[in-house]
Amino acid sequence: MNILIIFFFIIIYDKIIDKRLGEMIMVNKKMYELGAQKSKIRELFEYGEKLKQQIGSENVFDFSIGNPSVPCPNVVSEALINIVSNTNPTLLHGYTIASGLVFVRKQIADYLNKTYDLNESYEYIYLTAGAAAALTISLNAILCEDDEVIVFAPFFPEYKVFVEKAQGKLVICPTKKDTFLPDINMLDKMVNEKTKVVIINSPNNPTGVVYHQETIINIANLLKEKEKKYQHPIFLLSDEPYRELIYSNTSYPFITKYYDNAIVNYSFSKSLSLPGERIGYILIGANCKEKDIIFKAVNGAGRALGFVCESSMFQYLIPYCLGHTSNINIYKENRDILYNALKDIGYQLIYPEGAFYLFMKALEDDDEHFSNVAKKYGLLIVPSTSFGMKGYVRISYCVSKDTIINSLKSFKKLYEHYKVGD
Amino acid sequence: MNILIIFFFIIIYDKIIDKRLGEMIMVNKKMYELGAQKSKIRELFEYGEKLKQQIGSENVFDFSIGNPSVPCPNVVSEALINIVSNTNPTLLHGYTIASGLVFVRKQIADYLNKTYDLNESYEYIYLTAGAAAALTISLNAILCEDDEVIVFAPFFPEYKVFVEKAQGKLVICPTKKDTFLPDINMLDKMVNEKTKVVIINSPNNPTGVVYHQETIINIANLLKEKEKKYQHPIFLLSDEPYRELIYSNTSYPFITKYYDNAIVNYSFSKSLSLPGERIGYILIGANCKEKDIIFKAVNGAGRALGFVCESSMFQYLIPYCLGHTSNINIYKENRDILYNALKDIGYQLIYPEGAFYLFMKALEDDDEHFSNVAKKYGLLIVPSTSFGMKGYVRISYCVSKDTIINSLKSFKKLYEHYKVGD
Repeated sequence: MNILIIFFFIIIYDKIIDKRLGEMIMVNKKMYELGAQKSKIRELFEYGEKLKQQIGSENVFDFSIGNPSVPCPNVVSEALINIVSNTNPTLLHGYTIASGLVFVRKQIADYLNKTYDLNESYEYIYLTAGAAAALTISLNAILCEDDEVIVFAPFFPEYKVFVEKAQGKLVICPTKKDTFLPDINMLDKMVNEKTKVVIINSPNNPTGVVYHQETIINIANLLKEKEKKYQHPIFLLSDEPYRELIYSNTSYPFITKYYDNAIVNYSFSKSLSLPGERIGYILIGANCKEKDIIFKAVNGAGRALGFVCESSMFQYLIPYCLGHTSNINIYKENRDILYNALKDIGYQLIYPEGAFYLFMKALEDDDEHFSNVAKKYGLLIVPSTSFGMKGYVRISYCVSKDTIINSLKSFKKLYEHYKVGD
Repeated sequence: MNILIIFFFIIIYDKIIDKRLGEMIMVNKKMYELGAQKSKIRELFEYGEKLKQQIGSENVFDFSIGNPSVPCPNVVSEALINIVSNTNPTLLHGYTIASGLVFVRKQIADYLNKTYDLNESYEYIYLTAGAAAALTISLNAILCEDDEVIVFAPFFPEYKVFVEKAQGKLVICPTKKDTFLPDINMLDKMVNEKTKVVIINSPNNPTGVVYHQETIINIANLLKEKEKKYQHPIFLLSDEPYRELIYSNTSYPFITKYYDNAIVNYSFSKSLSLPGERIGYILIGANCKEKDIIFKAVNGAGRALGFVCESSMFQYLIPYCLGHTSNINIYKENRDILYNALKDIGYQLIYPEGAFYLFMKALEDDDEHFSNVAKKYGLLIVPSTSFGMKGYVRISYCVSKDTIINSLKSFKKLYEHYKVGD
């Protein structure tokens, strides 16, 4: 009886709180929560800025943010000045059609076809304000209410935000413990008739792992089977802002070669070190059965979300930059120094072939606590719980070489903090 | 009985069609429809491009699109070259915080405060990729399911798309027949407990009308009453990409002075002739009761829709451009020539004080048919049904002076087409 009364009061109390929140907020509660809760990454970054003032910036090693540290190649600045100086401003800064300037999309298609031996058409390329916009537009174009989207943990945390805003449901599939590659058996179990999209991200944020041909073939074969079984398309969406950032003698296969219902979300942010400029595209694979319908839905979603067109001046910039990258050897050197040093100290890590992240096993189960302990040594590293997986930290090595070299003493102290007395 | 059977079959048939569409499309149907259906404006524009090939561009008078015809002021190109030449590229092209660079927002606030005698703070300015993004972010931040948004007909057609994508319901309030200003008595009837937002747009697209102080005071007073009555905020959202494009000796009042729960959506597209670059902002008025909560919701909505930050390079451009405009005297001259000539021919029009649109009474009730008849004379003018109002056409006079002068013969013929034999 008493329990019932307590239960009753809990319900009443909840209703009162909800009502007050409703009255107080008078905005969309979900959007408020998304804006109010800072991401772990940003929180760490801001903590770091304060810490630098307290103990000196030479004692703070900020590995929190994936902001490219290598400047854009000269071709970018030169092309921008050239474009501004020599293009009729009414054309240069005018509205373009929503999908982007045809001559720019043609050059992208040509570049892709030549580089990856493809047969893609500019007609199914839609220029976007970066990879985030490519993702939200793609997802809003495809998803209907309660459609499921599978991602592989660990994963870029905004996937959840984007999928849910597009009325979808995020389903998290584990990766293999030793390689962080998708576990095909688990994927097999997780695909069901509600599955509409599977997102892959290679080179991967946060693990740095690159998916090789075998992985893509395995995923493609499984999804083909499932498409037959459920009699509807399951889209394989490749989020690939790090495509060019690979440091081993390998490459990330182009998924449209292996799977028909393939959609590529690309960004120039990382390869050209232009993350603030928001330049990217959606490509709907040439073998996609309903590519005209999908392209129209992409146009519709771009329109409804408020993306009128990608910045016209940056559209003009793209042809100058195809095939160029920042000096990525700097990231390779950073990776080699940091990976080898941490390995020598005794840390467990996966060898990252690409992106600019190292994924390291925390020295205790609680990765958030581990990240807090690391702060004491001036090390800002992101707990893996943010990426949907426990027990690891992400280390962004897009920092100066000096930061890496000077941080090694701290990484050693952190290791000793845990291992002394073991 | 027979009627029942027919009714029954209609229902069955609808279900079959829906299912086939569902199977065929496998994308979000609403987004597909938005992408598949071209806007009337774009349709006319594309028709015009074909017509020019057939009958020569000197015989086609395209008044369809609101693409600024006057180039951006020199300060834009000079500043862009200066910024690219003299800013550290890692900073210039790097991520900024989602709401935009603080020094830029401070300069916007200072400019507004000085120019309009306000007391606004940069802390409630959020930079956006143009006015469309400002609108979608504001609406997604504020609206909960089925909240009502009132607009005044005729209105910019994307309002409906943006409101519905944000789960709101668009409610259309008529304007006064003689002035196209909001009809306060009608507004009084339409505001109810579900009303969350009232959108005003001045200088107005498509009428060119400017809302003067009296109109703003009347709307503000009514909404204050309604807020008291329904015990929740009703946001007055001013969409003002044409703020500086006023040709009479008047100005558009700054709404935060007259109403507490005020939100301004601004764009640099029209005043600086940079529509393709997507530069604008959301300002939450200093007297807005829950401005911190709203600002967080704005941040959340921007994040969920995929707007990471406004292009960083264009953020750097803003301080150079505050207070500058393209040479708007050209639009003024266009307006004067066209307005006077059409009036002389015998057309009925409202005198437009701003923007670059003339709203003209069609010479028959069916504005779409009237627009089609006008095509025969090489005149491309947009039927007002697109703007939620029957019986008018919109004439965009952001074209060359020659186009206007050469078109007058056609406007005369069109008039005679209808009036001969009257």
